[in-house]
Amino acid sequence: MTTHYEAMTTYTATVTVRLKQGVLDPEAETTKRALERLGFELESLRSADRFEVEMDAESVAAAEDRADEMAERLLANPTIHDYDVEVTEA
Amino acid sequence: MTTHYEAMTTYTATVTVRLKQGVLDPEAETTKRALERLGFELESLRSADRFEVEMDAESVAAAEDRADEMAERLLANPTIHDYDVEVTEA
Repeated sequence: MTTHYEAMTTYTATVTVRLKQGVLDPEAETTKRALERLGFELESLRSADRFEVEMDAESVAAAEDRADEMAERLLANPTIHDYDVEVTEA
Repeated sequence: MTTHYEAMTTYTATVTVRLKQGVLDPEAETTKRALERLGFELESLRSADRFEVEMDAESVAAAEDRADEMAERLLANPTIHDYDVEVTEA
C-alpha cells in the first residue's frame, strides 16, 4: 500500500482591495489635501489595502483560487470594492 | 527672447507602506484569525497601505523623488513603517 502526498509549495498571494470608481473616499481626499498643504502638486490620490498572504498550496492556480475566495468572503466587500490577486512563489 | 517650458508627463507613483518587521499588527492578526475561522489555511498575513498618486513631472526620476518625499513627510511614519515607491507612466 502506498500513500501519495501532494507536493506543497509556499506561495505569497497579494490581494489589493480598492474602492470602486465612483465610491467616495474621504480618507484619500484628506490625505491629498494634506499633501497639497505641504506644498506638493498632485493630480489625484487613490488609496488601497494590500494583504500579503503566505500559504502552502499544490500549484499557483490553487493558491490563486484560495486567495480569490478569501477576497470574496472576507477581504473585499463586493458592493464597494474591486480587488486583484497576484501570486508568486515565496 | 525665448521662454523655455519643460515638457511634463503624467506619472502614477505607487507608495506601499508596511509596518516594520517586529512591529505588532493586531489588525492583520485579527484578519488572519477570521480567515482561519472560515476554514482557510494560511501561514501568515501582512497588511499594507497602498497610495496611488497621479502627478505631472519632468521625468521618472523627478516623480520618484517627489513620491519619496511624500512618503517621508506624510504617508509613512519612519519609526514604525518601511515603504517603497514604484513609478510608471500613467
